Amino acid sequence: MAKRNYIFDTIKQVFLLYGFQQIETPALENLSTLMGKYGEEGDKLLFKILNSGDFLKDAPDELLQGRDSLHLTNKISEKGLRYDLTVPFARFVVQHRADLQMPFKRYQIQPVWRADRPQRGRYREFYQCDADVVGSDSLLNEVELVSMIDDVFARLGIHIVVKLNNRKILSGIAEVIGAPDKIVDITVAIDKMEKIGLDNVNAELREKGLTDEAVATLQPLLTLDGANSEKLDSLRQMLQGSEVGQKGLDEMAYVLDHVDALGLKAQVELDVSLARGLNYYTGTIVEVKARDVEMGSITGGGRYDNLTGVFGMPGLSGVGISFGADRIYDVLNTLNLYPASLIASARVLFINFGEREAAASLAIIRQLRSAGISAELYPDSAKMKKQMSYANDRHFPYVAIVGESELENGTVALKNMATGEQATLTPAELAERLH
Amino acid sequence: MAKRNYIFDTIKQVFLLYGFQQIETPALENLSTLMGKYGEEGDKLLFKILNSGDFLKDAPDELLQGRDSLHLTNKISEKGLRYDLTVPFARFVVQHRADLQMPFKRYQIQPVWRADRPQRGRYREFYQCDADVVGSDSLLNEVELVSMIDDVFARLGIHIVVKLNNRKILSGIAEVIGAPDKIVDITVAIDKMEKIGLDNVNAELREKGLTDEAVATLQPLLTLDGANSEKLDSLRQMLQGSEVGQKGLDEMAYVLDHVDALGLKAQVELDVSLARGLNYYTGTIVEVKARDVEMGSITGGGRYDNLTGVFGMPGLSGVGISFGADRIYDVLNTLNLYPASLIASARVLFINFGEREAAASLAIIRQLRSAGISAELYPDSAKMKKQMSYANDRHFPYVAIVGESELENGTVALKNMATGEQATLTPAELAERLH
Repeated sequence: MAKRNYIFDTIKQVFLLYGFQQIETPALENLSTLMGKYGEEGDKLLFKILNSGDFLKDAPDELLQGRDSLHLTNKISEKGLRYDLTVPFARFVVQHRADLQMPFKRYQIQPVWRADRPQRGRYREFYQCDADVVGSDSLLNEVELVSMIDDVFARLGIHIVVKLNNRKILSGIAEVIGAPDKIVDITVAIDKMEKIGLDNVNAELREKGLTDEAVATLQPLLTLDGANSEKLDSLRQMLQGSEVGQKGLDEMAYVLDHVDALGLKAQVELDVSLARGLNYYTGTIVEVKARDVEMGSITGGGRYDNLTGVFGMPGLSGVGISFGADRIYDVLNTLNLYPASLIASARVLFINFGEREAAASLAIIRQLRSAGISAELYPDSAKMKKQMSYANDRHFPYVAIVGESELENGTVALKNMATGEQATLTPAELAERLH
Repeated sequence: MAKRNYIFDTIKQVFLLYGFQQIETPALENLSTLMGKYGEEGDKLLFKILNSGDFLKDAPDELLQGRDSLHLTNKISEKGLRYDLTVPFARFVVQHRADLQMPFKRYQIQPVWRADRPQRGRYREFYQCDADVVGSDSLLNEVELVSMIDDVFARLGIHIVVKLNNRKILSGIAEVIGAPDKIVDITVAIDKMEKIGLDNVNAELREKGLTDEAVATLQPLLTLDGANSEKLDSLRQMLQGSEVGQKGLDEMAYVLDHVDALGLKAQVELDVSLARGLNYYTGTIVEVKARDVEMGSITGGGRYDNLTGVFGMPGLSGVGISFGADRIYDVLNTLNLYPASLIASARVLFINFGEREAAASLAIIRQLRSAGISAELYPDSAKMKKQMSYANDRHFPYVAIVGESELENGTVALKNMATGEQATLTPAELAERLH
């Protein structure tokens, strides 16, 4: 928890610096809100809550007799557990639209649940950390989100590359090669360039049904290289005939220019192979990778123009990112990047030598706590060895001793557990030393 | 969320000062862990998760044909939502016993779920904030918990009375009047003294089946008054014949003495009518009430000697308290005790006058954020009136203006939204002013 809180607190601090407001939504949503939003596979992975009471009362005979689990589900279950933070957020925005000031900048850090087979990196319960701006189509929001990503990972000490793409650039590519249905195949192929090389990628594209002409048109895209400005120039050339493509390039140039001016720590890279959530995003797409460790995307997001349309509120544009707390946790563990001060114990443990000593210790401990110093008294006057072993196991930085002689002199013996150094102090000196 | 976080953060800070370690447990527990722990009514109020996939496959024919919802439940549902934090904690302690250093001091702040009819003060999802010490039967733990209660409510500014009782005192009373099964009736009757008076209470006790002799023996208890030490003296007298009663009084005297020595802000009161969770607690019982507002118990807890017995680990003593965050929220609202600085917006909003001004604003905003000052740029160059109305609705304390002339002079105009005062500052002066 100490490690997880470090991640959550860091992300939260940055969210607040940028003026995002926190919301939480209930764990339970109506199944009618959740179903059909995550594809057929998603519907299966929803945890569904059995209705209370006599849930079989109105179940149709034929479903029971036929043991038709699939169709019985919505007769005996009306609620499900949150599957992500995006759909509940959309429901929230529509429900509270009269009370929200637009643009509405919200963040949300809560667990989500998926009825998946648990395995490394895939959990039934895990946290999402989302920040979204809705009600503004200004590209400055994209700039702010990239800047926020930079701040979070700079604070965590993780070197990153921020990859940017734009759905409209992808649409433009599909337009100029005349194969709008092949855009996923194309991005998958581009992504393999480094691994399998140009010839194999071209072969794969033909296999997927692209004409020789389309493959030829795609060549500049496959060998796209150099600085972002050079990539933009090549793409301008290639997408000359596509209005939507040019629009995408304008947006990309705007975001890159403004991000550039901020002088971020992160490397920012135009990557046309980026195609996450293709059906969902309508503009900018963003993904973050750690540079010093092999790990999938650790943060991602993009712009969507119709988040709330499905709940009857069309035309609300938004843009958001989601920090993958569990993967960030793995990266920090791998690179051992946690601050040394991340200790789950109080700052000092008072050894318990018996009734009178314990009572005197409690009074001193109360003073320390008023000064903001966490302190603990071992509750039983157990053997010294047992108490010291507790101090070791819990990693207390200091142990304080109020024995008979200290009681007499009104002092405390303080032992630094790292150096072994010991000092005899007055209670006031003790507070000062521990600060 | 700003108000709720204020409560959670205050409680959390105090938990940490006392050396409690945070844990979280999953929302889902096996139903076998949860069922039978909260009584028959509790079993009904558990949210149960429908098994994934073809859940009807192995359901017995007769249960389907008979529409036997009750007995079908455990054939089609294996998991349920956490109902409180205590049972999951007990499960956690048993499961991790090899890794835990005893005494184990844990705190846990998480939502719990109950399939109840929602109404004022009763929610389907609500937060519990628990702190427990297990593996030590020292009464110093009780002293620490009372001290912790005092710290939390002193920080929140709520005047409280801490009511203490001891299960063993209640057992002693039952013993001396020879009616061990009447102890709940007796505590309920004592609790009514102020409202209905001695005669009516005595009548009620006889109605409940107590003999005249028993009622006579109870009289000192019903008129118990004065300082805690006087109450202790009366009870000593009354419980002379009961060993368990004397033990309870010894424990109570110990806790009261030590709490007294700490000089708490809270009023601490021995109250023999306190009988919460009678079947559960085995020693000290504690309950907290706000003095300036009518509201039930806002915190409660006690000592239990067999928390983990039901999971196969007997003999582990523990003591814990639970802060009722939702009721504390209501008390703070009623008394309007939130700090004035509790604002959900960033500290300053930069008005957006167009491309060049926005770009210059972003650079200044980046400096402010590096200095720890939260700041926001209105993302669209909308009409001034719209932007100022956003600033008002979101309660920004300051608005910053970088218009044409400021751009020329390299300055920022800063407006204090409370006083209307306006100043022209350099970016460095701005950061200083906002700090």
